[in-house]
Amino acid sequence: MTRIRIALAGILLAVSTAAAIAQDPLPSWNDGAAKKAIVEFVKATTTQGSPKFVPPGERIATFDQDGTLWVEHPVYTQLVYCLDRVPVIVRAKPELAGVEPFKTVMSGNREAIAHLSEEDLIKIAMATLTGMPVDDFRAEVKRWIAAAKDHRWNRPYTDLTYLPMQEVLKYLRASGYRTYIVTGGGQDFVRAYSEATYGIPPEQVIGTSIAVKYSYGKDGKPLLTKEPKLILDNNNAGKAEGIYLMIGRRPYAAFGNSTGDEQMLEYAKGGDGLRLAMIVLHDDAKREYAYGPAEGLPASKVGTFTQALYDEAKKQGWTVISMKNDWKNIFAFESSGINRREGPSGSSAGRSRSRLR
Amino acid sequence: MTRIRIALAGILLAVSTAAAIAQDPLPSWNDGAAKKAIVEFVKATTTQGSPKFVPPGERIATFDQDGTLWVEHPVYTQLVYCLDRVPVIVRAKPELAGVEPFKTVMSGNREAIAHLSEEDLIKIAMATLTGMPVDDFRAEVKRWIAAAKDHRWNRPYTDLTYLPMQEVLKYLRASGYRTYIVTGGGQDFVRAYSEATYGIPPEQVIGTSIAVKYSYGKDGKPLLTKEPKLILDNNNAGKAEGIYLMIGRRPYAAFGNSTGDEQMLEYAKGGDGLRLAMIVLHDDAKREYAYGPAEGLPASKVGTFTQALYDEAKKQGWTVISMKNDWKNIFAFESSGINRREGPSGSSAGRSRSRLR
Repeated sequence: MTRIRIALAGILLAVSTAAAIAQDPLPSWNDGAAKKAIVEFVKATTTQGSPKFVPPGERIATFDQDGTLWVEHPVYTQLVYCLDRVPVIVRAKPELAGVEPFKTVMSGNREAIAHLSEEDLIKIAMATLTGMPVDDFRAEVKRWIAAAKDHRWNRPYTDLTYLPMQEVLKYLRASGYRTYIVTGGGQDFVRAYSEATYGIPPEQVIGTSIAVKYSYGKDGKPLLTKEPKLILDNNNAGKAEGIYLMIGRRPYAAFGNSTGDEQMLEYAKGGDGLRLAMIVLHDDAKREYAYGPAEGLPASKVGTFTQALYDEAKKQGWTVISMKNDWKNIFAFESSGINRREGPSGSSAGRSRSRLR
Repeated sequence: MTRIRIALAGILLAVSTAAAIAQDPLPSWNDGAAKKAIVEFVKATTTQGSPKFVPPGERIATFDQDGTLWVEHPVYTQLVYCLDRVPVIVRAKPELAGVEPFKTVMSGNREAIAHLSEEDLIKIAMATLTGMPVDDFRAEVKRWIAAAKDHRWNRPYTDLTYLPMQEVLKYLRASGYRTYIVTGGGQDFVRAYSEATYGIPPEQVIGTSIAVKYSYGKDGKPLLTKEPKLILDNNNAGKAEGIYLMIGRRPYAAFGNSTGDEQMLEYAKGGDGLRLAMIVLHDDAKREYAYGPAEGLPASKVGTFTQALYDEAKKQGWTVISMKNDWKNIFAFESSGINRREGPSGSSAGRSRSRLR
């Protein structure tokens, strides 16, 4: 009986979800090439009898996180976390207070911190992200992410996910796709909040990974401790390699926004049948940020989107998403009317393209 | 309408599955402590309102493969594959014909092959499992596994999965558990047949993994090539570490059969709430094989089950599965009546225990 009741509840849910999606699965998207590409891809790959039909088990969609699902400027959220953790590390090991790069971070000199080298940042990451039991780390990230706020919007970072992309995640899942995050960020870091933030469970988060070491705690119980040893650099080619390692299937749809996502998009697009590759262009300085070729600016170090990447997107048949033109709203917290843009009646991609080159 | 029809079909399926399971989810198991432990675990963790209820997302069950889901004696199936591939490798690189350990394998001298050292076997594995595109490798394994036969039963290796364990996999999945293979064998090797053989998709197979390298083929399309570089040794502590890397959650149920599964079972059992840890004892020389402490034999090198492991099982509250006493049938191909044992009316574990020590 309980099973029947659950199944009946399932029917009602399926019917109401189907109704909502039939109405408009992507209400925060303006009509244009980007929205059309997504809807047509879903219809072609999930309609029984379609020549491009994809069996449910094969329906894999991968998403970069920083700059694709949420804001990555002025710096990656995980870097803010690492910098925030430095005082705790220094308290535990006071000898670090006089050692660079910890000394600079402790000084609070924002300018100096902004100029830390990549090597320094790796030192900070290793010091703040390793050495503790995995459960302690996850609990700490959960605490931090619930409390920390972005300076520009004065809101939790998890509020800064893109509403149109959240709609894509839900639309794909309602269409039988399994959605994965494939991030250059730390796998453990993102797993701490991915389910609450994106509806994506930990086993569907693939990220840059360090080793863990099995031992026993004082209570004799097994303990996994984070080790300062990189085992998967999930950037660039590492994203395609990480997908192969963790999923073992090639995605049918992939979404990115920077050169670090290039190989993931190539890999998805290189498969048989219909594949969707999309790339988010940050061209909305007013509502979010503008960086990359759209505004004629030099490519940003955070979320690098070069003219070469734009050219590859065109050549390979990837769809460029213009935040400015394709998205009615960027964040869920924007009330309707405020910050809302109505799109052009024609192709938004056409307008976006004219801005480039 | 289509969605409603799918949902209705889902109801019918749910009702009929529920009916079949209500009858007896484990028909190939004799009544006894092992069967009881499984059924009580499932009921306690999946009945709404139960103090041990586990939310569906957390329902993870992990299974060793060799010796737990299928036959591992006299040697691991993957090793047979590697040895079978040596002539192909030697044909491609004739200079290997005079080099050990390839020379010994090519000689066909079974005795000498059986005495190859672990170091030799690793050389053979690296030569036969790396250097090719991942798609070619998977296709090759599929071809081989469809054709190769075990000598004792003269049947494909995939026929040698244990029917009682296949029932456990189905029962757990019908109860909302996601079933994973966590094998010391090669992740790519097992992924080639896991879905057809166990209903377990590639993304739910965690195994010993080597790196893959991203490049481009002659057609300009992305290519992933298997590299001779180990990135996850999924044995012993590596199993718990691999589960953390690939799933990021602790299993509620874990099944193994040898010292290589010890840490996986400890890890599962170390979590809060009700956890199930089970270990298969090979004590049926007539229907399968007998090795380990049950028959007073020295621990086998293939699927090592020591007296110390048995003692830990008892101490930690793992349930020992006696193949001889707990399983009515071992393989699906056994017709009813042939090879069938009716179990004791009392606890099978009790009988099994008396045989040990």
